[in-house]
Amino acid sequence: MQNRIYNFNPGPAALPLPVLEEIQAEFLNFKGSGMSITEISHRSKAFDEVLNDAVARVKRILSLPENYHVLFLQGGASSQFYQVPMNLMGPGDTADYIDTGIWSAKAIKEVNILERSVNVAASSEDRNYCYIPKDIKFNPEAAYVYLVTNNTIKGTQWAEFPETGGVPLVADMSSDILSRALDVSPFGLIYAGAQKNLGPAGVTLVIIRDDMLDRVPDGLPSMVSYKTHVDKNSSYNTPPCFAIYVVQLVVKWLEEKMGGLEGVARVNDQKASLLYDFMDGDEFYRPTADKDSRSRMNVTFRLADEELEPKFVAEALENGLNGLKGHRSVGGCRASIYNAVSLEAVQSLVEFMKEFFRTNG
Amino acid sequence: MQNRIYNFNPGPAALPLPVLEEIQAEFLNFKGSGMSITEISHRSKAFDEVLNDAVARVKRILSLPENYHVLFLQGGASSQFYQVPMNLMGPGDTADYIDTGIWSAKAIKEVNILERSVNVAASSEDRNYCYIPKDIKFNPEAAYVYLVTNNTIKGTQWAEFPETGGVPLVADMSSDILSRALDVSPFGLIYAGAQKNLGPAGVTLVIIRDDMLDRVPDGLPSMVSYKTHVDKNSSYNTPPCFAIYVVQLVVKWLEEKMGGLEGVARVNDQKASLLYDFMDGDEFYRPTADKDSRSRMNVTFRLADEELEPKFVAEALENGLNGLKGHRSVGGCRASIYNAVSLEAVQSLVEFMKEFFRTNG
Repeated sequence: MQNRIYNFNPGPAALPLPVLEEIQAEFLNFKGSGMSITEISHRSKAFDEVLNDAVARVKRILSLPENYHVLFLQGGASSQFYQVPMNLMGPGDTADYIDTGIWSAKAIKEVNILERSVNVAASSEDRNYCYIPKDIKFNPEAAYVYLVTNNTIKGTQWAEFPETGGVPLVADMSSDILSRALDVSPFGLIYAGAQKNLGPAGVTLVIIRDDMLDRVPDGLPSMVSYKTHVDKNSSYNTPPCFAIYVVQLVVKWLEEKMGGLEGVARVNDQKASLLYDFMDGDEFYRPTADKDSRSRMNVTFRLADEELEPKFVAEALENGLNGLKGHRSVGGCRASIYNAVSLEAVQSLVEFMKEFFRTNG
Repeated sequence: MQNRIYNFNPGPAALPLPVLEEIQAEFLNFKGSGMSITEISHRSKAFDEVLNDAVARVKRILSLPENYHVLFLQGGASSQFYQVPMNLMGPGDTADYIDTGIWSAKAIKEVNILERSVNVAASSEDRNYCYIPKDIKFNPEAAYVYLVTNNTIKGTQWAEFPETGGVPLVADMSSDILSRALDVSPFGLIYAGAQKNLGPAGVTLVIIRDDMLDRVPDGLPSMVSYKTHVDKNSSYNTPPCFAIYVVQLVVKWLEEKMGGLEGVARVNDQKASLLYDFMDGDEFYRPTADKDSRSRMNVTFRLADEELEPKFVAEALENGLNGLKGHRSVGGCRASIYNAVSLEAVQSLVEFMKEFFRTNG
């Protein structure tokens, strides 16, 4: 099995092995073209099929209504931090942002740089972002309500989305896109860097609704305007072809091998429950997020004796379990268990955690 | 040999076969990590080595002085069209642009969108961009002089760069970067989308000089500011890891297998001469660019009988020669013969052209 290890990286992260094997098998000769997927024209029929199939699969797996468009852009979620306000806020507009950690704080910072008006409608900073705010009072005049659906660093996730009284939601779903069923109707715009649940780094999925497109002002640089990319089906300039191709294969795998969003959500719940239930049974491991705010994607935890954490991470690696160190800004431990992380990987992790507890507890 | 064909695509384009083979061989297990290059963290030691080696190799192969920085950004050359003026033009500044075809015209358009002052110092539009302008009078007060070193669509290339009287050059080198020796000292900024001479689509090489960085104003979105990316060694957010890895391998191949820029330029000259000399010997094929402006990268030509062109392109493909159709905006034929296109490929093309002439001439 190629000496592969169990990969709990927070992103770039594990990809499905069958997808990697398919890429490898056809890497020198894509679909009989005599060229690598990295060598074919973005205007060729062969690549059109890749791009259009990726778009169609994302639309189908999310049951997107007709008035939503699927884009594949460059620049990461960090570029959306300024593209969103530049495209969706008119003069004099204000937007509600919900601050649930580092990524939302970065998004707020970019709105401030643009000297647009942002209202932090709720924040969980008071308890180090260990929970998802409730009972939020929104501004009914806001251009949109911005939130991060899953917080990779703090290990929290929205279980349900807040009622905004008709104001469209704009969401950074980088770390839980396509991990569970989703009703997109409250969302005006969704984006997700691919490198956690969708594919390799280098492409950002953007889903945008028609009424959001209507807001896009003239006078934006062509590459900044969402209109450009909708009009040109993500091919105004050369798109990141290889990354889009991998996304296509990953969504195909979700549809054909994992039973779509319902199927993968079932496995994701199993994986997360296995970890949380085990940790809740004793005091040795301590999940950092409030129970009702726990992420099914990034399980953050501390050891009762924090000095044991480096030993835990190092011994896990020796046992073929990679990527368990917490984000450098918060320390501790984290198991990222995205779609492509198998139940077997999580079972192995729990076995290791039991053994580590036995010898160090 | 995997049924590979000769690939004359204009971009995305041919990559060196040994590079593709190395990627394929280690695709499931990068350097013994047990993970694919697409699955490892951009903050890992393994990826640091890739990124730093790519930067070091670009610096070395171009003999870049200490005051130049090498960046790997996203968004393609088309994003540089607005990033350049936003970063390098102060209030009241004007910039000189040389218009040599579609790509420079697009860059000029983006400066106009930003409502900055642009002076078209020279243009070859009068003769359908078939030549590189000479004896240009520059504005000594210009913020910079902008040019496109090689024009993929029109098949022209600057043989020597103009004397600007000390005004820094800013160059789009997307289609001839690292194809020949280069004295970078007149250049304040160079950028190149990777997908022609450097790697796959999805990463843009940016080379920027310290005094250009000093111009970058505060108040730009973080991802738009070159300072952000210099300060963070292209890792402010997750970079396009796979594309950078391929660039690293391509530059390694240039250094270790092709004899650096002198070596590859020698082969590139041979390839171009083979094609142009053959076509100059008769009237059947007609290169479209003026002799002193001909590109060594994109050989654009017409057939005396233009109605034969679709047949030419189709029969070439049947003979394993792909990508010879001219850009959709100009028609005709084009052989893109970037670094990774072998002398053998060009010899095969000339053989086919002789045979096609024999049967259709």
